[in-house]
Amino acid sequence: MKLDRVTVDDRLSALGTWRLEAEESKWIVRKYRFTSFMQGISFVGEVARISEAVNHHPMIAIDYKMVTLRLTSWSAGGLTELDFSTAAKFDQAYVEGNAE
Amino acid sequence: MKLDRVTVDDRLSALGTWRLEAEESKWIVRKYRFTSFMQGISFVGEVARISEAVNHHPMIAIDYKMVTLRLTSWSAGGLTELDFSTAAKFDQAYVEGNAE
Repeated sequence: MKLDRVTVDDRLSALGTWRLEAEESKWIVRKYRFTSFMQGISFVGEVARISEAVNHHPMIAIDYKMVTLRLTSWSAGGLTELDFSTAAKFDQAYVEGNAE
Repeated sequence: MKLDRVTVDDRLSALGTWRLEAEESKWIVRKYRFTSFMQGISFVGEVARISEAVNHHPMIAIDYKMVTLRLTSWSAGGLTELDFSTAAKFDQAYVEGNAE
Protein backbone atom coordinates (compact mmCIF):
# COMPACT_ATOMS: atom_id res chain seq x y z
CA MET A 1 0.00 0.00 0.00
CA LYS A 2 1.30 3.40 -0.95
CA LEU A 3 2.39 5.44 2.06
CA ASP A 4 1.18 8.98 2.64
CA ARG A 5 3.70 11.79 2.81
CA VAL A 6 3.70 12.05 6.60
CA THR A 7 4.55 8.35 6.90
CA VAL A 8 7.22 8.66 4.20
CA ASP A 9 8.87 11.50 6.12
CA ASP A 10 8.68 9.44 9.29
CA ARG A 11 10.35 6.43 7.60
CA LEU A 12 13.05 8.66 6.07
CA SER A 13 13.81 10.12 9.50
CA ALA A 14 14.03 6.63 10.98
CA LEU A 15 16.57 5.56 8.34
CA GLY A 16 18.49 8.84 8.40
CA THR A 17 20.48 7.81 5.31
CA TRP A 18 18.05 8.00 2.37
CA ARG A 19 16.22 10.95 0.88
CA LEU A 20 13.42 11.59 -1.56
CA GLU A 21 15.00 11.91 -4.98
CA ALA A 22 13.12 15.17 -5.47
CA GLU A 23 10.23 16.95 -3.82
CA GLU A 24 7.09 14.82 -4.37
CA SER A 25 9.21 12.08 -5.93
CA LYS A 26 8.09 8.46 -5.99
CA TRP A 27 11.72 7.42 -5.47
CA ILE A 28 14.02 7.28 -2.47
CA VAL A 29 17.76 7.37 -3.11
CA ARG A 30 21.08 6.83 -1.34
CA LYS A 31 24.67 7.11 -2.53
CA TYR A 32 27.22 4.74 -0.95
CA ARG A 33 30.93 5.54 -1.19
CA PHE A 34 33.73 2.96 -1.20
CA THR A 35 37.51 3.03 -1.04
CA SER A 36 37.88 0.88 -4.16
CA PHE A 37 35.92 0.02 -7.29
CA MET A 38 35.86 -3.69 -6.39
CA GLN A 39 34.51 -2.96 -2.91
CA GLY A 40 31.56 -1.22 -4.56
CA ILE A 41 31.09 -4.17 -6.92
CA SER A 42 31.09 -6.55 -3.98
CA PHE A 43 28.39 -4.43 -2.29
CA VAL A 44 26.31 -4.58 -5.48
CA GLY A 45 26.53 -8.38 -5.29
CA GLU A 46 25.13 -8.21 -1.75
CA VAL A 47 22.42 -5.79 -2.88
CA ALA A 48 21.50 -8.24 -5.65
CA ARG A 49 21.18 -11.15 -3.21
CA ILE A 50 19.00 -9.10 -0.87
CA SER A 51 16.86 -7.87 -3.79
CA GLU A 52 16.21 -11.38 -5.00
CA ALA A 53 15.40 -12.56 -1.47
CA VAL A 54 12.74 -9.90 -0.96
CA ASN A 55 11.81 -9.79 -4.67
CA HIS A 56 12.23 -6.03 -4.76
CA HIS A 57 14.91 -4.58 -7.02
CA PRO A 58 16.49 -1.14 -6.82
CA MET A 59 17.85 0.81 -9.75
CA ILE A 60 21.63 0.62 -9.35
CA ALA A 61 24.28 3.00 -10.70
CA ILE A 62 28.00 2.32 -10.31
CA ASP A 63 30.16 5.36 -10.95
CA TYR A 64 33.64 4.10 -10.13
CA LYS A 65 33.80 4.11 -6.30
CA MET A 66 30.23 5.36 -5.78
CA VAL A 67 27.11 3.19 -5.87
CA THR A 68 23.69 4.83 -6.05
CA LEU A 69 20.54 2.89 -5.20
CA ARG A 70 17.00 4.05 -5.96
CA LEU A 71 13.82 2.39 -4.77
CA THR A 72 10.15 2.69 -5.59
CA SER A 73 7.12 0.38 -5.71
CA TRP A 74 5.77 0.42 -9.25
CA SER A 75 2.71 -1.65 -8.37
CA ALA A 76 1.64 0.82 -5.67
CA GLY A 77 2.47 3.90 -7.71
CA GLY A 78 4.71 5.26 -4.98
CA LEU A 79 6.62 4.35 -1.84
CA THR A 80 5.61 1.45 0.41
CA GLU A 81 6.87 -0.16 3.61
CA LEU A 82 8.77 -2.62 1.38
CA ASP A 83 10.92 0.22 0.01
CA PHE A 84 11.95 1.27 3.50
CA SER A 85 12.49 -2.24 4.87
CA THR A 86 14.63 -3.08 1.80
CA ALA A 87 16.58 0.19 2.15
CA ALA A 88 17.33 -0.74 5.78
CA LYS A 89 18.69 -4.13 4.62
CA PHE A 90 20.97 -2.42 2.08
CA ASP A 91 22.24 -0.06 4.80
CA GLN A 92 22.94 -3.03 7.06
CA ALA A 93 24.89 -4.81 4.28
CA TYR A 94 26.91 -1.62 3.76
CA VAL A 95 27.79 -1.35 7.44
CA GLU A 96 28.68 -5.04 7.65
CA GLY A 97 30.80 -4.83 4.48
CA ASN A 98 32.76 -1.88 5.86
CA ALA A 99 33.20 -3.53 9.25
CA GLU A 100 34.95 -6.57 7.74
CA MET B 1 45.36 10.01 -27.42
CA LYS B 2 41.93 11.42 -28.18
CA LEU B 3 40.54 10.08 -31.47
CA ASP B 4 39.20 12.38 -34.16
CA ARG B 5 35.59 12.04 -35.22
CA VAL B 6 36.34 10.10 -38.41
CA THR B 7 38.26 7.49 -36.41
CA VAL B 8 35.53 7.34 -33.76
CA ASP B 9 32.92 6.64 -36.46
CA ASP B 10 35.20 3.98 -37.92
CA ARG B 11 35.60 2.27 -34.54
CA LEU B 12 31.84 2.44 -33.87
CA SER B 13 31.17 0.81 -37.24
CA ALA B 14 33.70 -1.92 -36.45
CA LEU B 15 31.96 -2.71 -33.15
CA GLY B 16 28.45 -2.38 -34.53
CA THR B 17 26.96 -2.52 -31.02
CA TRP B 18 27.86 0.79 -29.36
CA ARG B 19 26.82 4.35 -30.21
CA LEU B 20 27.79 7.86 -29.27
CA GLU B 21 25.62 8.84 -26.32
CA ALA B 22 24.67 12.01 -28.17
CA GLU B 23 25.94 13.94 -31.17
CA GLU B 24 29.44 15.25 -30.32
CA SER B 25 29.38 13.29 -27.05
CA LYS B 26 32.58 12.22 -25.30
CA TRP B 27 30.81 9.01 -24.28
CA ILE B 28 30.00 5.76 -26.04
CA VAL B 29 27.15 3.69 -24.69
CA ARG B 30 25.59 0.23 -25.01
CA LYS B 31 22.56 -1.37 -23.35
CA TYR B 32 22.72 -5.13 -22.70
CA ARG B 33 19.51 -7.07 -22.05
CA PHE B 34 19.24 -10.22 -19.96
CA THR B 35 16.56 -12.80 -19.23
CA SER B 36 16.97 -12.42 -15.46
CA PHE B 37 18.19 -9.85 -12.94
CA MET B 38 20.92 -12.18 -11.64
CA GLN B 39 22.21 -12.83 -15.16
CA GLY B 40 22.73 -9.08 -15.50
CA ILE B 41 24.46 -8.96 -12.11
CA SER B 42 26.76 -11.80 -13.17
CA PHE B 43 27.65 -9.84 -16.33
CA VAL B 44 28.46 -6.78 -14.20
CA GLY B 45 30.87 -8.97 -12.22
CA GLU B 46 32.62 -9.89 -15.48
CA VAL B 47 32.65 -6.24 -16.54
CA ALA B 48 34.27 -5.36 -13.21
CA ARG B 49 37.01 -7.96 -13.64
CA ILE B 50 37.76 -6.74 -17.17
CA SER B 51 37.74 -3.10 -16.02
CA GLU B 52 40.25 -3.80 -13.28
CA ALA B 53 42.46 -5.81 -15.66
CA VAL B 54 42.70 -2.96 -18.17
CA ASN B 55 42.38 -0.26 -15.48
CA HIS B 56 39.56 1.43 -17.36
CA HIS B 57 36.16 1.63 -15.68
CA PRO B 58 32.81 2.22 -17.35
CA MET B 59 29.83 3.90 -15.76
CA ILE B 60 27.38 1.08 -15.05
CA ALA B 61 23.60 1.27 -14.64
CA ILE B 62 21.52 -1.77 -13.68
CA ASP B 63 17.82 -1.31 -14.31
CA TYR B 64 16.38 -4.71 -13.44
CA LYS B 65 17.20 -6.90 -16.48
CA MET B 66 19.01 -4.18 -18.44
CA VAL B 67 22.64 -3.17 -17.93
CA THR B 68 23.93 0.05 -19.52
CA LEU B 69 27.66 0.68 -19.89
CA ARG B 70 29.19 4.05 -20.77
CA LEU B 71 32.84 4.68 -21.58
CA THR B 72 35.04 7.72 -21.98
CA SER B 73 38.69 8.62 -21.34
CA TRP B 74 38.75 11.48 -18.84
CA SER B 75 42.49 11.98 -19.15
CA ALA B 76 42.27 12.46 -22.92
CA GLY B 77 39.15 14.59 -22.77
CA GLY B 78 37.33 12.31 -25.17
CA LEU B 79 37.34 8.85 -26.72
CA THR B 80 40.53 6.82 -27.17
CA GLU B 81 41.47 3.42 -28.57
CA LEU B 82 41.22 2.12 -24.98
CA ASP B 83 37.49 2.88 -24.92
CA PHE B 84 36.90 0.82 -28.04
CA SER B 85 39.18 -2.08 -27.09
CA THR B 86 37.49 -2.25 -23.66
CA ALA B 87 34.02 -2.06 -25.27
CA ALA B 88 34.99 -5.02 -27.48
CA LYS B 89 35.99 -7.01 -24.37
CA PHE B 90 32.63 -6.27 -22.71
CA ASP B 91 30.83 -7.41 -25.87
CA GLN B 92 32.85 -10.61 -25.90
CA ALA B 93 31.98 -11.30 -22.24
CA TYR B 94 28.30 -10.74 -23.06
CA VAL B 95 28.40 -13.20 -25.97
CA GLU B 96 30.26 -15.79 -23.89
CA GLY B 97 27.85 -15.35 -20.98
CA ASN B 98 24.84 -15.91 -23.23
CA ALA B 99 26.47 -18.91 -24.91
CA GLU B 100 26.86 -20.77 -21.61
